[in-house]
Amino acid sequence: MTTSSPSFPTTTRAWILPSSPTGPSSLTIQTLPLPPLGQNDILVHFRALSLNYRDISLSKGTYTRPALPNLIQGSDAAGCVLAVGPSVRLFKPGDRIMTTFWRDWISDGQDVRSFAGSDLGGNMEGAFREFGGFALHALVRVPESLDYREAAGLPCAALTAWECLYDRGDRHVRAGDTVLVQGTGGVSLFALQFAKGVGGRVVATTSSGEKEELLKKMGADVVINYREVQDWGVKVKELTGGVGADIVIDVGGASTVSQSLKAARIGTGTICLIGHLSGGHGEDVPNVWDVRQALCKVRSVAVSSRAQFEEMVRAIEGWGIKPVVDGKIWKFEEMKEAYEYLADGRHIGKVVVDVV
Amino acid sequence: MTTSSPSFPTTTRAWILPSSPTGPSSLTIQTLPLPPLGQNDILVHFRALSLNYRDISLSKGTYTRPALPNLIQGSDAAGCVLAVGPSVRLFKPGDRIMTTFWRDWISDGQDVRSFAGSDLGGNMEGAFREFGGFALHALVRVPESLDYREAAGLPCAALTAWECLYDRGDRHVRAGDTVLVQGTGGVSLFALQFAKGVGGRVVATTSSGEKEELLKKMGADVVINYREVQDWGVKVKELTGGVGADIVIDVGGASTVSQSLKAARIGTGTICLIGHLSGGHGEDVPNVWDVRQALCKVRSVAVSSRAQFEEMVRAIEGWGIKPVVDGKIWKFEEMKEAYEYLADGRHIGKVVVDVV
Amino acid sequence: MTTSSPSFPTTTRAWILPSSPTGPSSLTIQTLPLPPLGQNDILVHFRALSLNYRDISLSKGTYTRPALPNLIQGSDAAGCVLAVGPSVRLFKPGDRIMTTFWRDWISDGQDVRSFAGSDLGGNMEGAFREFGGFALHALVRVPESLDYREAAGLPCAALTAWECLYDRGDRHVRAGDTVLVQGTGGVSLFALQFAKGVGGRVVATTSSGEKEELLKKMGADVVINYREVQDWGVKVKELTGGVGADIVIDVGGASTVSQSLKAARIGTGTICLIGHLSGGHGEDVPNVWDVRQALCKVRSVAVSSRAQFEEMVRAIEGWGIKPVVDGKIWKFEEMKEAYEYLADGRHIGKVVVDVV
Amino acid sequence: MTTSSPSFPTTTRAWILPSSPTGPSSLTIQTLPLPPLGQNDILVHFRALSLNYRDISLSKGTYTRPALPNLIQGSDAAGCVLAVGPSVRLFKPGDRIMTTFWRDWISDGQDVRSFAGSDLGGNMEGAFREFGGFALHALVRVPESLDYREAAGLPCAALTAWECLYDRGDRHVRAGDTVLVQGTGGVSLFALQFAKGVGGRVVATTSSGEKEELLKKMGADVVINYREVQDWGVKVKELTGGVGADIVIDVGGASTVSQSLKAARIGTGTICLIGHLSGGHGEDVPNVWDVRQALCKVRSVAVSSRAQFEEMVRAIEGWGIKPVVDGKIWKFEEMKEAYEYLADGRHIGKVVVDVV
Repeated sequence: MTTSSPSFPTTTRAWILPSSPTGPSSLTIQTLPLPPLGQNDILVHFRALSLNYRDISLSKGTYTRPALPNLIQGSDAAGCVLAVGPSVRLFKPGDRIMTTFWRDWISDGQDVRSFAGSDLGGNMEGAFREFGGFALHALVRVPESLDYREAAGLPCAALTAWECLYDRGDRHVRAGDTVLVQGTGGVSLFALQFAKGVGGRVVATTSSGEKEELLKKMGADVVINYREVQDWGVKVKELTGGVGADIVIDVGGASTVSQSLKAARIGTGTICLIGHLSGGHGEDVPNVWDVRQALCKVRSVAVSSRAQFEEMVRAIEGWGIKPVVDGKIWKFEEMKEAYEYLADGRHIGKVVVDVV
Repeated sequence: MTTSSPSFPTTTRAWILPSSPTGPSSLTIQTLPLPPLGQNDILVHFRALSLNYRDISLSKGTYTRPALPNLIQGSDAAGCVLAVGPSVRLFKPGDRIMTTFWRDWISDGQDVRSFAGSDLGGNMEGAFREFGGFALHALVRVPESLDYREAAGLPCAALTAWECLYDRGDRHVRAGDTVLVQGTGGVSLFALQFAKGVGGRVVATTSSGEKEELLKKMGADVVINYREVQDWGVKVKELTGGVGADIVIDVGGASTVSQSLKAARIGTGTICLIGHLSGGHGEDVPNVWDVRQALCKVRSVAVSSRAQFEEMVRAIEGWGIKPVVDGKIWKFEEMKEAYEYLADGRHIGKVVVDVV
Repeated sequence: MTTSSPSFPTTTRAWILPSSPTGPSSLTIQTLPLPPLGQNDILVHFRALSLNYRDISLSKGTYTRPALPNLIQGSDAAGCVLAVGPSVRLFKPGDRIMTTFWRDWISDGQDVRSFAGSDLGGNMEGAFREFGGFALHALVRVPESLDYREAAGLPCAALTAWECLYDRGDRHVRAGDTVLVQGTGGVSLFALQFAKGVGGRVVATTSSGEKEELLKKMGADVVINYREVQDWGVKVKELTGGVGADIVIDVGGASTVSQSLKAARIGTGTICLIGHLSGGHGEDVPNVWDVRQALCKVRSVAVSSRAQFEEMVRAIEGWGIKPVVDGKIWKFEEMKEAYEYLADGRHIGKVVVDVV
Repeated sequence: MTTSSPSFPTTTRAWILPSSPTGPSSLTIQTLPLPPLGQNDILVHFRALSLNYRDISLSKGTYTRPALPNLIQGSDAAGCVLAVGPSVRLFKPGDRIMTTFWRDWISDGQDVRSFAGSDLGGNMEGAFREFGGFALHALVRVPESLDYREAAGLPCAALTAWECLYDRGDRHVRAGDTVLVQGTGGVSLFALQFAKGVGGRVVATTSSGEKEELLKKMGADVVINYREVQDWGVKVKELTGGVGADIVIDVGGASTVSQSLKAARIGTGTICLIGHLSGGHGEDVPNVWDVRQALCKVRSVAVSSRAQFEEMVRAIEGWGIKPVVDGKIWKFEEMKEAYEYLADGRHIGKVVVDVV
């Protein structure tokens, strides 16, 4: 156990978003002081950061609610512990850690109101910086099998996929379950990997031949090109011998959920809604009585708890899963370009920024 | 182990519905032959039968799908074993048993397609008769603490309430959970009793002072008169300190589900849809993106498995719960009158028909 | 749905054990009448049978309790449905089915006393015959991916392995869990396959280089030769970074359980006792306070329910697992030789007998 | 959110145990400095402390391992938050909190090695003091329905009882389960209350008529005087219709565990070992093959995680359970007398010390 020493940084550079932002160009890099290391603090040196669409929405001011003004942006990062306060025992200098999306969602049973408002980069100082002090409950160890870049994308995308498949531990995705994933975004690819990890069958939808290749290489049992098969929900049911998908991870919202309902297993299928709320009020959006008639379940998923994060870390080590990291790695100073790159949709897998 | 003997009945009287029925008056009582007792058969003497709204809908031809023509009606009955085939071991003459709503839904993991079409009184010969032969897997023992009349109402209403609270055993209603029940129908009253049994808090809605008394007497913590408090969903959230109900058992469909969504706990609330499909397409019916925004879960419930029925029997014994049986008990020959009585809504609790 | 017809067999040949048996040579083949097909009966044509050590013990009269005299032997078989009674709906002629070890253990919550005495080949007419009539609840469908020989070994060995890993569904073996299996018997090999199926890590013990090869080929992460490493329990803990095995499947009893206790994970490790009771009272056998000090759990496992069997069938299909069947397949008339072969321990995987 | 201010205490009085202690008289009261309030610290004013037998053993040097020298003693306390560091959001000044027994056991899946060595009063600075700084993850909110004295006894005794009944959430004690508790110690009384809360049946053993009264008043369905009925394990099985207890909470060790094994339900009964390790090697102590033959489960329980503590708090509020607090309340300065009082066994329920 080590306390702060003269060699530790006293300031950090960080990417800040002003009030009324207008897009990635609104981001500015600033140098901020670091508070002294307290009894229960953990000083972290971030080494890799990862972007989510939420970051872009926040930068444009189009997210469901705006970020607090002048807040450090970003929710996802991996780094190492530089120093710990005298009371800290679970982490020690040199340990590799990740941030959690909801800083204060520690265990499954916690009421939403207790951790609402604790999202990194939205309401809490975020992860897009070089250094920062954190409490123990806001950090999780990196899977031994992953490097910093691979780990950086777990806090939001991977944990969302995990929550879709485990429902706070109440339901375990099982061998023989069919999981339907849509596209090649982070959550979809993690869900594919996790489902294959337990012996599930994965049906994936995509629009391009290139992505079809990737999905098959990653283990998708069936890939449906939704441009060619517009009524793909029905197709999924056919391909599963009339059964349908046990779990549907719906990322498209208004444009996909009608088909998702057709794809879901009668009686027990669960559709997880994880997309943003854009366009949810078109005429085509099924209502709850369509859910009744389809004899299935619809649930809203918003990442998960630190407890589930720890379960996921253990599972990722067990499966030996490697997250898909986009081939282009960005530098800390290139953050705005990384935002634009993600916004353009030119990436495959998680977009990662290195911190030296 | 006993085989058939000369003293056993060879025919049974039964209530039959013709094709194209026009209401309870379409019912006719007929005498049908009983098949010989096979190796694995259990000959049952029914002693009490119980009616559900579904029976009325079937008699009117307004149910989601019509009953097979000339089928014995009814799903719910309790009786005793008269004789068993030579291979039967789990039941013996004298044992008290109940029917199951889905004759072939034995265990939780079974695919819906395997037991669809096995509903008593709709697709399978039903329970409104004096005698019948059944397989072991289609019967469940009566809780020791209940008599035939009390037990007769468990197969459909009680098991639906149970499934809302346990979700095939994946989720257990827990002490401290708030359960919202609507009205004084069978499912609502059983859900109230089960929730109180584990230490839950029950909020009930009703429209009359008399029923309010009953609900409070049965343990409801709060009763809301929905005629006086039209925005009762918001009221439920207020009454639970802003938390909302963990489980909402929605029986009203189009007329209630908007309020149910307001009443559900943010983050983890589950709305169970159990009502019939009437009027599900009004403008007020929330769509799945409303579910997304309410951060909750919506699921369709259609009774449950024999395995859950057994769990429920054990729990009912543990809690010492007594089902509410309407004060007016009908005779077997008065079946049509019993249908009309239920249709009129003059009852409280389960409507029961005695078989001598 | 088909009823009995003139072309169906009216007798079956079967392997019978007399009272006071003295070994496999006590077995006799007899021709027995088949009862008529009742309302709820399923007439089965067995195609492959599989032997367990229990069968040998029963034939020698050394099992914990003797078989009922003149009982058809055997618990494990796979076959196809020839005909069904008029009330049977879940199976139809041509369906492929397996027996269940406990004929009357239908669902998880059932009390032991209700199915004790329903073990095939011990207290109930067994499976070593050509034809037989069964109730629906006593049969389970064969995984689509398996042939009769592969399926024949599931009722006892595979379901025991499954129960060790799932505990009636209460605990799910998870990715990252370490499972310790001992030797190359049926239960151990199935447990190895199931654990690998979810992303578990498997440590196996064995005594020969040849079996070591097999275990590695089947996916064991580490194989320990217990002749070379006598204190292999300590070794397991070393090999798992000091953690120990989450689940230990102890098949050896007095000769292994001390090491199993050393191998189990501190705090949460579970040792499943599945071996016979021979030699359980030596000085080396740990007592319950050793369990207390090792901070772990010990449980007795005796196969599982039909509900778990169905879950396992689905998982086997999902994983695409192929059971290991010994290279030498025996004919129905060679049953005694098959018993001797198993007793000699010359086999690898399940010993199977064909029925033409 | 409030930071430290001039009015906050800078020192605390605390009860310290030296190296090589010889009993309660070894305790000394000392005044210690409080470290400054860091970013993630929570300054707590304890208001009620509660004693466990472990505290006495530690004071005598007879516990399984000695306390670190000169350590603040005690694991159980309830108090209120005086101030929080600027990063703390989940607690605010005025909130009522309790300590956790294992300071660093946050969530269920955590490996024992990560929190071993974090027990308050043994390896970590304990709770028997006026003030102290804690991290968020080491505190849990007090149930609204309890005062400080009632809450003070939850961290060790209640959470141990909870863990016996829920097994980290893997198994839920259910209505209809029979729970056997031994005596009137803290764990036994909490287990009784929790079991009754879900509709369980409780059998309790005791040696005196006075305690028999208490147990019955608290809801025990059957009380057995083990002085009169020496073979009480057999008696329990008789009283439960031959079934036995689903859960046995064994506090006596060598003197009780043989009877516990007789009392446990065949097939699924679980015996939770929670007593200290005294005398575990007598000839009467059953070994693991006795467990095999009894077809049950034995597990070692050592309190539980913060996540389970939170679940328990919610349940206690739901049930409205009031812990039993001994009638004699001690002052902070009377700590040695309180130790002696507990050691003498003159108390009923939890022994509590007030802090002004």
